[in-house]
Amino acid sequence: MVNVTIFGKGNMGKAIGDNFVKADNKVSYIGSTDTVGDIGDIVVLAVPYTAALEIVTKQADKLADKIVIDITNPLNFETWDELVVPIGSSAAEQLADKVPGIQIVKGFNTNFAGTLLSKEVGESKITTTVLLASDFDNAKSAIVAALDGSGLKVIDAGGLKRAHELEAVGFLQMTLAANENISWTGGFGIIE
Amino acid sequence: MVNVTIFGKGNMGKAIGDNFVKADNKVSYIGSTDTVGDIGDIVVLAVPYTAALEIVTKQADKLADKIVIDITNPLNFETWDELVVPIGSSAAEQLADKVPGIQIVKGFNTNFAGTLLSKEVGESKITTTVLLASDFDNAKSAIVAALDGSGLKVIDAGGLKRAHELEAVGFLQMTLAANENISWTGGFGIIE
Repeated sequence: MVNVTIFGKGNMGKAIGDNFVKADNKVSYIGSTDTVGDIGDIVVLAVPYTAALEIVTKQADKLADKIVIDITNPLNFETWDELVVPIGSSAAEQLADKVPGIQIVKGFNTNFAGTLLSKEVGESKITTTVLLASDFDNAKSAIVAALDGSGLKVIDAGGLKRAHELEAVGFLQMTLAANENISWTGGFGIIE
Repeated sequence: MVNVTIFGKGNMGKAIGDNFVKADNKVSYIGSTDTVGDIGDIVVLAVPYTAALEIVTKQADKLADKIVIDITNPLNFETWDELVVPIGSSAAEQLADKVPGIQIVKGFNTNFAGTLLSKEVGESKITTTVLLASDFDNAKSAIVAALDGSGLKVIDAGGLKRAHELEAVGFLQMTLAANENISWTGGFGIIE
């Protein structure tokens, strides 16, 4: 049992929280107007990228020894044609740079909320798979363990550098959905 | 019926060629030691990235008015940890820069050869889907038309800029297979 703190009360935050609850963890939520009190050992930044940057900066002391999951897809939502992070980098790497030692894990950004709730991509019977990228292997293992029993599959996709590729997948998947090539309950299914 | 010329006689070249043949096109192959004669209206560069660069440079005159499909995943195969193209760019954009006006289309790089032959990702019943990225809409339409009847699905994933994301998907998928998280007959299935 792990205490999980989720920043953000939107669809993604709730869908991720439901999975941690299903796997017998204790989940609490912090909204944008809430005071930040004690936070759990696993933190989920289920907010837009700019808000995530603000949170890690303001809460740097509290987050320094926590596992912090960055789920953001830092799209330029005016153009839908680029990311707002420096070329070649990623939101996760930018967040990691803000707080020395912070255990940033990229994850959930390649999953639409609907697939996190249904545990399958579309109506395919393909189990929803969460891809994680981090330089902290213990952090990834802790997330895998905490989600055991949720019904999701979780795969270690490599070091934090791979966040660039995970964000490219998230970006591409969102453009495919926005252009109606796929639905917002479908997307990339990971098939063995 | 379109004449299709495939540079490369490896697994990918043959798997792509089989699909064009199945859809009633005429396919010819050019190996690395073959003399380059007449080439078709659709050209597939089914060779490693460095060889693809050489081909477009040497055959610039013949390729200038052709549809040229770049299937490469330009990994650094020593480290498996980065691409060899400039950060933020893509193999497809680098190739396009070599020959003014060349109709470069990124495609097939997110598909493993086995899935192009079986028409499904793994044993999932999820139809193998080819993602295309190009600034030439007519070129993408011509490829969609030429593959009609092959059994593959083909999706327009956007302009040539999206080649960066397609190459990130291809890169990530290869690392997942190399680390045995997925098999070389599985991968990312695109689910509506």
